[in-house]
Amino acid sequence: MKAAIITAGSELTDGRVLDTNTAFLARRLDSLGVKVVLTLSVPDDRELIVAAINFALGEKPGLVVITGGLGPTEDDLTAPAVAAALDLKLELSGQAEEYVRAAVGASGELPPHQAKQAMMPPGSSVIRPAGTAPGFIVNAGGGRVVALPGVPWELRAMWEDAVSDPRVSRLLSAARPPARGRLSFYGVAEAEIGAAVGKIMGRNGAGLDVSICSRRGEVMLEVTADSKDEGRVQELVKTLKQNFSDFVFSEGEEIENVVAARLTGMGATLAVGESCTGGMLGEAITRVPGASAFFLGGVTAYSNDVKRNLLKVRQETLDNVGAVSEPVAQQLALGARSLTGSDYGAGITGVAGPGGGTAEKPVGLVFICVSSDAGDVVRRFDFPGGRGQVRQSAVTAALHMLHWKIIADP
Amino acid sequence: MKAAIITAGSELTDGRVLDTNTAFLARRLDSLGVKVVLTLSVPDDRELIVAAINFALGEKPGLVVITGGLGPTEDDLTAPAVAAALDLKLELSGQAEEYVRAAVGASGELPPHQAKQAMMPPGSSVIRPAGTAPGFIVNAGGGRVVALPGVPWELRAMWEDAVSDPRVSRLLSAARPPARGRLSFYGVAEAEIGAAVGKIMGRNGAGLDVSICSRRGEVMLEVTADSKDEGRVQELVKTLKQNFSDFVFSEGEEIENVVAARLTGMGATLAVGESCTGGMLGEAITRVPGASAFFLGGVTAYSNDVKRNLLKVRQETLDNVGAVSEPVAQQLALGARSLTGSDYGAGITGVAGPGGGTAEKPVGLVFICVSSDAGDVVRRFDFPGGRGQVRQSAVTAALHMLHWKIIADP
Repeated sequence: MKAAIITAGSELTDGRVLDTNTAFLARRLDSLGVKVVLTLSVPDDRELIVAAINFALGEKPGLVVITGGLGPTEDDLTAPAVAAALDLKLELSGQAEEYVRAAVGASGELPPHQAKQAMMPPGSSVIRPAGTAPGFIVNAGGGRVVALPGVPWELRAMWEDAVSDPRVSRLLSAARPPARGRLSFYGVAEAEIGAAVGKIMGRNGAGLDVSICSRRGEVMLEVTADSKDEGRVQELVKTLKQNFSDFVFSEGEEIENVVAARLTGMGATLAVGESCTGGMLGEAITRVPGASAFFLGGVTAYSNDVKRNLLKVRQETLDNVGAVSEPVAQQLALGARSLTGSDYGAGITGVAGPGGGTAEKPVGLVFICVSSDAGDVVRRFDFPGGRGQVRQSAVTAALHMLHWKIIADP
Repeated sequence: MKAAIITAGSELTDGRVLDTNTAFLARRLDSLGVKVVLTLSVPDDRELIVAAINFALGEKPGLVVITGGLGPTEDDLTAPAVAAALDLKLELSGQAEEYVRAAVGASGELPPHQAKQAMMPPGSSVIRPAGTAPGFIVNAGGGRVVALPGVPWELRAMWEDAVSDPRVSRLLSAARPPARGRLSFYGVAEAEIGAAVGKIMGRNGAGLDVSICSRRGEVMLEVTADSKDEGRVQELVKTLKQNFSDFVFSEGEEIENVVAARLTGMGATLAVGESCTGGMLGEAITRVPGASAFFLGGVTAYSNDVKRNLLKVRQETLDNVGAVSEPVAQQLALGARSLTGSDYGAGITGVAGPGGGTAEKPVGLVFICVSSDAGDVVRRFDFPGGRGQVRQSAVTAALHMLHWKIIADP
């Protein structure tokens, strides 16, 4: 079964807001065995929304999920656009009106901008609002158009209701999840993995669909095939795992989850000392639910005073080699450990840019240390890209160094 | 002038990777006065990429920018898809071959997977690779198709070359940035602003295009119009600013930039004490280039031991009211200030979920304190959504509380 996702909102197409709804929906649909063949974003423009819906319907998807444009303001145009695309006329839904009234705590007649939120394509199933905007499901040919609000938490809260609505769940019951294997690599180039895949698959690759992409030093591979080819998918994954055993870190899980599982499993604890990343390593680690089982905390030592006073970075070191240096990375990691009593420590110091770079210490230069009783490992990195990219790459590298150290430690 | 953006990659349509290229390109095009009317993502599937290009070209855009699918692996299909959509046949580009050879440090013949990266639609301008994949620009009707790699830092590095290529820059010189006003609000509902806009514009709103959206408690408004209507745009913005003076925090700038500018301007310093956000507040603040002018650092006190030992949270308080409480938020903020000697401090403690919630202290309960010599302010929040949403909302709220306090302080 195929699906298309449409997100409506001028704030998306002019870049003011990063669209996270598409990825959320794509993951959910993917896990239900539905292949997303197309995602679109369009401004708050009725004609463009209609054009997007029509283009999506042209791919004959089982589901078209559209988010955004269900709010109370003039630029919220999704319901009329869906109606226009399906050649229907909006009508007041008693159910939707009741939902909106309950959501805004109104007893009498709704003000016009809220009454508008109760106008639905005829024959819609109405989805109870998490905020104030109800969603709806309407038939479109053999498929369904599902319209949900664009506010991320509202969308997430209402998604389960949408897929358990009988109109959608009946369709989904026919979806057959494909055979699938995933591998995530760090420290090896995309091209090298691609070449190896080509070689391994040789003339026996028909029916296996391999997707490879890289992201801040990590390479992600996914192989999918018809469910009858499960064995061949697993065989390919197994062979790649053997050939790249030093570089494979998971079967699709994020590195922070891998590190979290290791530390939790060992009953070991972690603390961090961050400079240029400003708290981003701690943030990544604590994204993992249950991080309190192993993460004690950390110190963000942005100023040299904080480095000295809290993490006991030595003035002499700062004077001799500067804050962005191998020994300071080590002292940050050791300081974090000794302050918190953690088993593992990580320290990051670098030049994130855009300012602060010199010929000797350019933007992108980062030193990272991971420390445990078994010893300390410090590495130097020269990351490409701007401030955001350098910081993200440093956090990713620190997590991988931690992972390697945890595995290598006796 | 109109534009469309296409991002190719199965990792985008199955939700493994969040697409940030679209928002980057949208912002850049928007700043050049180009209206993005459509963005699409498609899997690594030649037919779907061709369909997306054709659909985009149907909107008669000046530019179609397509990212991804220029790599060396089998699933990199953008060049053949562009060629097919334009009814062209790929040919080897000497310039591209030279670029690839230089990028991979090859002297003789390129291996097939890299030679493939030098196959371009005939008549293309080749864009020098930042990594190993060259981009290209090819004419399509009266417009241009610009193909760039999907790796975010490579795309960013190559974008400037693409827009300064004569074929593109000549087109762009005809683009006329519209009249535009932006306002960002916190603490007021989208519907209330929408109603006010409707009232103010009354019958005089023709030609003004107002887009309103909300995001974790912030509401963003943008009004655009033909450049001749600059005066009317400014008038609307001015009136809204007066009517919502307690809630407007910027004309489009992010709250972390607003706080950073205030603190830098005053020569005041800031430190943070975080629990449930795990470093995310520090990360948000240090996203701002030059944050070292005011941000000293912080302590992430995830465990109660760290709260007690580093930030001097009192055992008695933890025993009596627990870690998620008003006094602990205050002690985190005060502890961060006294440890670092900062003028301002912020403390966050809460239940981010999914576990750890109780009837009395449910998931989403967060206490935030901002502190200065002028006194401390502590607020309780009950945020909706999951772990990520609660943490993000807490960081946003802390930044706004800081902003209010900085303004209110004598």
